[in-house]
Amino acid sequence: MNANQLFHEIQNKKSFLCIGLDTDIEKIPAFLKNAHDPVFEFNKRIIDATHDLVIAYKPNLAFYEAMGLKGWEAFEKTVNYIKNKHPEILMIADAKRGDIGNTSKMYAKAFIENLPCDAVTVVPYMGSDSIKPFLGFENKWVIILALTSNAGAADFQFSQTEKGKLFEKVLETSKNWGTMDNMMYVVGATKAEELQSIRKIIPHHFLLVPGVGAQGGSLCEVAKNGFNKQCGLIVNSSRAIIYANSTEKFDVIAREKALEVQQEMERLLKSHSIS
Amino acid sequence: MNANQLFHEIQNKKSFLCIGLDTDIEKIPAFLKNAHDPVFEFNKRIIDATHDLVIAYKPNLAFYEAMGLKGWEAFEKTVNYIKNKHPEILMIADAKRGDIGNTSKMYAKAFIENLPCDAVTVVPYMGSDSIKPFLGFENKWVIILALTSNAGAADFQFSQTEKGKLFEKVLETSKNWGTMDNMMYVVGATKAEELQSIRKIIPHHFLLVPGVGAQGGSLCEVAKNGFNKQCGLIVNSSRAIIYANSTEKFDVIAREKALEVQQEMERLLKSHSIS
Repeated sequence: MNANQLFHEIQNKKSFLCIGLDTDIEKIPAFLKNAHDPVFEFNKRIIDATHDLVIAYKPNLAFYEAMGLKGWEAFEKTVNYIKNKHPEILMIADAKRGDIGNTSKMYAKAFIENLPCDAVTVVPYMGSDSIKPFLGFENKWVIILALTSNAGAADFQFSQTEKGKLFEKVLETSKNWGTMDNMMYVVGATKAEELQSIRKIIPHHFLLVPGVGAQGGSLCEVAKNGFNKQCGLIVNSSRAIIYANSTEKFDVIAREKALEVQQEMERLLKSHSIS
Repeated sequence: MNANQLFHEIQNKKSFLCIGLDTDIEKIPAFLKNAHDPVFEFNKRIIDATHDLVIAYKPNLAFYEAMGLKGWEAFEKTVNYIKNKHPEILMIADAKRGDIGNTSKMYAKAFIENLPCDAVTVVPYMGSDSIKPFLGFENKWVIILALTSNAGAADFQFSQTEKGKLFEKVLETSKNWGTMDNMMYVVGATKAEELQSIRKIIPHHFLLVPGVGAQGGSLCEVAKNGFNKQCGLIVNSSRAIIYANSTEKFDVIAREKALEVQQEMERLLKSHSIS
């Protein structure tokens, strides 16, 4: 999937929502726990209930690895289920990997060659050779962590360097390693001035924005400062959607929550004349 | 295992060698490829041939993930084999993980709670909450990437910040998050001045130094600038040992290569009066 195709999906679904499948075996509804593969069963029902409202799904690998072999199996089944049933949906492996060149190649193999993931999140700390092995695949994406939304982001990402704050230097240095069709950035920016400064450096790239839907209220601000002509935003929500309810109706309620976000996104796309 | 116990092992084996089990199914000897689990079989033979010469093993997760489910299985079997047969050897999961606090907790669960790994490598880009979940386990370690040895390290790790170069700021900022008994650093420093500057910031912590044995020649320099009273160094070698030979005698030759490094380490420990 390239950037035009992604924009086409956004126009089609009037949505730039990504649902984070951070599926924790301890948080899924009790009635599912006796299923053969409770985590996959949970994901399947969430996907069946929401696929027409989203342009991306994003399982976070930590939740699957915490279950060992069974978790890895549930992850693979989830990826295959999404891409078999909904090839138009961007499948993001939120793996936050990164290693020296030869080793990063093995991570690219794991997620992009052996599995039908469309995108992998990667940490830039080790520099260009940790990122570039992910760039050699047509219609596949690397999503580089620039600015994250957690408290710890302040420790290093805001360090003043010779090229602005570290996250700005990451953007500036890496923006030409790939193209607008194979590179995005994780930007946990909810403050207007940060997003504006980011858009000055990378006006055209897609940004993956975590946690906005969940925390509510700032979606409007993110759209205002982050939109470009092709939308340019993928906004993720995890817990606020997938754990909104813990009864047998959890998937129905998850759909309702996703629909609320999608409708807000539709309004924002329209009011910014992106539709 | 705490720092004293690790030092005891170093004294006992007269070695500070770690063997990196970066086991690539495409690089193992042909005769092993029909084994039930070729990667585990390869690792098992390397371990059986070298365990008395090393204080640590370090499988890099990328090589296992690249094989999907079978790879995870081979990784788990390798970890269990090491800790069942040689509980005194430090088992490092070279995973280079790191995420927001709640998610990093899941990675700690994956490697430290569910598996008997003693240490996990973690990337500091996301700051303190990505590291701290690994610090709550007695006798377990987090190994923070400070300075890596690849070309890409120059992109960001050497950025000038308000507290020295970024890798120096990482050391300075994080050094009191944990203790000398639960925190180490990856330091791919072969230049004397870098190691000296690192030792000024963290004189007492253990450093995991990648690739020195493999590239030869610089072990002496690393020892000179990196040793502290309790040795303070774990030096890793991967390919130069495990792929030294590709016949049925690969494990015998791997032992010979490991022995050469161990003997050089023994000389260095002695000449620096650490023994």
